[in-house]
Amino acid sequence: MKHPALKKFRREKGFAPHQNPGAPEGLTYPKFGFTVTAQAKDSRARVGTFTTPHGSFETPNYIYAGTKGSLKNLHPHQAKEAGADIILANTYHMYVLGAVDIIAKHGGLHKFMNWDGPMFTDSGGFQVFSMGAGTEADELQSRGRNFGNENAVKISEEGAVFKSYRGGQALSLTPEMSVDIQHKLGADLLVQMDECTALHHDYDYTAYSMRMSTRWGDRSLHALKAKETDMQAMYGVIQGSIYEDLRMESIDWTNDRPFFATAVGGCFGDSKQSLWQIIDWCLPRIKSERPVHLLGVGFIDDIFHGVKMGIDTFDCVHPTRIARHGWALEKGAEKGRLNLRNEKYREDMAPLSDAVPYTRAYIHHLLKAEEMLALQIISQHNMRVMVQLFREIREAIRGGTIEKLRKSWLEG
Amino acid sequence: MKHPALKKFRREKGFAPHQNPGAPEGLTYPKFGFTVTAQAKDSRARVGTFTTPHGSFETPNYIYAGTKGSLKNLHPHQAKEAGADIILANTYHMYVLGAVDIIAKHGGLHKFMNWDGPMFTDSGGFQVFSMGAGTEADELQSRGRNFGNENAVKISEEGAVFKSYRGGQALSLTPEMSVDIQHKLGADLLVQMDECTALHHDYDYTAYSMRMSTRWGDRSLHALKAKETDMQAMYGVIQGSIYEDLRMESIDWTNDRPFFATAVGGCFGDSKQSLWQIIDWCLPRIKSERPVHLLGVGFIDDIFHGVKMGIDTFDCVHPTRIARHGWALEKGAEKGRLNLRNEKYREDMAPLSDAVPYTRAYIHHLLKAEEMLALQIISQHNMRVMVQLFREIREAIRGGTIEKLRKSWLEG
Repeated sequence: MKHPALKKFRREKGFAPHQNPGAPEGLTYPKFGFTVTAQAKDSRARVGTFTTPHGSFETPNYIYAGTKGSLKNLHPHQAKEAGADIILANTYHMYVLGAVDIIAKHGGLHKFMNWDGPMFTDSGGFQVFSMGAGTEADELQSRGRNFGNENAVKISEEGAVFKSYRGGQALSLTPEMSVDIQHKLGADLLVQMDECTALHHDYDYTAYSMRMSTRWGDRSLHALKAKETDMQAMYGVIQGSIYEDLRMESIDWTNDRPFFATAVGGCFGDSKQSLWQIIDWCLPRIKSERPVHLLGVGFIDDIFHGVKMGIDTFDCVHPTRIARHGWALEKGAEKGRLNLRNEKYREDMAPLSDAVPYTRAYIHHLLKAEEMLALQIISQHNMRVMVQLFREIREAIRGGTIEKLRKSWLEG
Repeated sequence: MKHPALKKFRREKGFAPHQNPGAPEGLTYPKFGFTVTAQAKDSRARVGTFTTPHGSFETPNYIYAGTKGSLKNLHPHQAKEAGADIILANTYHMYVLGAVDIIAKHGGLHKFMNWDGPMFTDSGGFQVFSMGAGTEADELQSRGRNFGNENAVKISEEGAVFKSYRGGQALSLTPEMSVDIQHKLGADLLVQMDECTALHHDYDYTAYSMRMSTRWGDRSLHALKAKETDMQAMYGVIQGSIYEDLRMESIDWTNDRPFFATAVGGCFGDSKQSLWQIIDWCLPRIKSERPVHLLGVGFIDDIFHGVKMGIDTFDCVHPTRIARHGWALEKGAEKGRLNLRNEKYREDMAPLSDAVPYTRAYIHHLLKAEEMLALQIISQHNMRVMVQLFREIREAIRGGTIEKLRKSWLEG
């Protein structure tokens, strides 16, 4: 680790990184709140009110991807019209694009991208480890599965050095840098920096890495405290991959730290069964008064499983990404979606939904003609469907009908 | 000409195509109107009210390109918000995409694409002759300059046979087919089919072709009359390329025919001087009570020249096409535009305009990050600038200040 930024870290901090600084004292979040307003009787599912300095929203809810500071081809007001409550931007992309200082000059991402509601940023770690030498396309398939060329990412106690996907220059990211960037971006909800291990990592490395992530978490908390802000709150991240004991150790550590909220992240194995198993292990042990986020999971069956176990928020690029393929989410449809590129929609005179002023035939035509308006229409539609899903989920938790609702979405 | 559709034409019409059917009797346009409401004193510029079954608008005005049934990445309501009065769709693309029947099933393009204002369709001829074997990219540069592989287009008195850019199969287009398609598309304003010659065609061929286009014009009028509709009116097209006497002959012919309006089209030479010369020749001779459209011209200096000679409407893909390059139109700027990809906008905190809720720095960021939202923002901005240009033009004609306005747009 010869990278100048890491040398600087070592010089400034004056401690060997392995000496964990411990949790900071007195870190509180007076402008944030989370209150459970309804608890299901037959599952851990719950309805809550999540308060941030940019407004409150109800949970369970979905955090919509505004990856590079833009919701795919949608104006923020279009996301609002669709009913989105909270959006996310990716620290990694802003950093690699060299956009952090100009965003800070605007007073943060809210003003930069013209979104005045609650906002979430991740730590950048996930993309560093999954995309270090890869492409954005790699990222989409990579969570917990195949990672990019790891040789291009060097990890040490201090942090990571990786190659930019723009130009290939070496960049570094430490927990302190991640918090500094997230502070400049100005989202309400931040995430501690962690290492995301992959499925091929063995138990020993995963244990080592999870413990290093706890030290990175403490450093993240110290860095946040040093900002002396009451406008930002931090998530601790549960690592530990597919190993139950490591997940438990990671949970006990986050529970003990002054995080505002908890995120379940890292490698979820290579199947839905594995993901669901990890959720089943983790949720009962996570401090229940904190909101719980499941990182990067957005398929509808996974959402129902997570909600029933007590997950409060989800995020995934899925709803807007699949718009590129012409896939429109639809309650009860096979695979939960319509493939509007399919010839069978060529003469389909039905509107895509009551809220869409265009027929399926028109959208099919736009897709065939490669008109970008199609992606705009489908992105907004998919957002609307996710908003509807979570409205119905909250209603069903209150009414005790979550299993019936699950069937109506997944089995038609 | 062995194409089945052309044989069918010959069989059904029962006349050798060279025998001009002459103009039809009794073709009137009761639901359409054009009234000059102000005439400049120092030029031929005029303000008018143009009435169609889908509403009225003031001229001079701009017809925005909705090439394949979509305004580039904009919802029709976004075009309305930007102030657009009238849009255009291309017969050729609808035909080649095989979309005509499904559009007819929707009751026409207005309902298909959800635009309820005035609409214009061209005959398809221009694209057949410029794109026959080319690509869409060819089209953009080709008006009056280089044409696609002409060997792939066979022209005869009956019409044209050309290769589809989708799949390469042979398609035909006759004046009767063009009107039939345009009738199904249901725009308010149609254009007769004509052959668009290129600059390399000699005088003799250009004369032959222009006269054939007059016969195609008569056939177009007959075909429209046979539709027995009062919802559609037709433009005759002035051909004749760079030859003054041929332009005059073409004008005398259209003036004599029951067209509702006149379009100046075809080859305009290889320079602005040539285009302006052709405009100067034509306008004084065109029936002044008919609205006059200049086909495919949309640069601001050309618009001022055309307006001063009495052109009432313009169209060009320019305002939305240049959005792809990150070019935002701006009154008085060098070349009339800002190149928002330029590094100098990286920290430019000014909004793109009072109507745009984003800074230039943000749009620069979106362009660099390849986010489609940039194109949406710039497309709508450019539309707004064109709307503003034409509002100011109408005001300046009324106030006798058109030359002053021209300078303020072109010289800053």
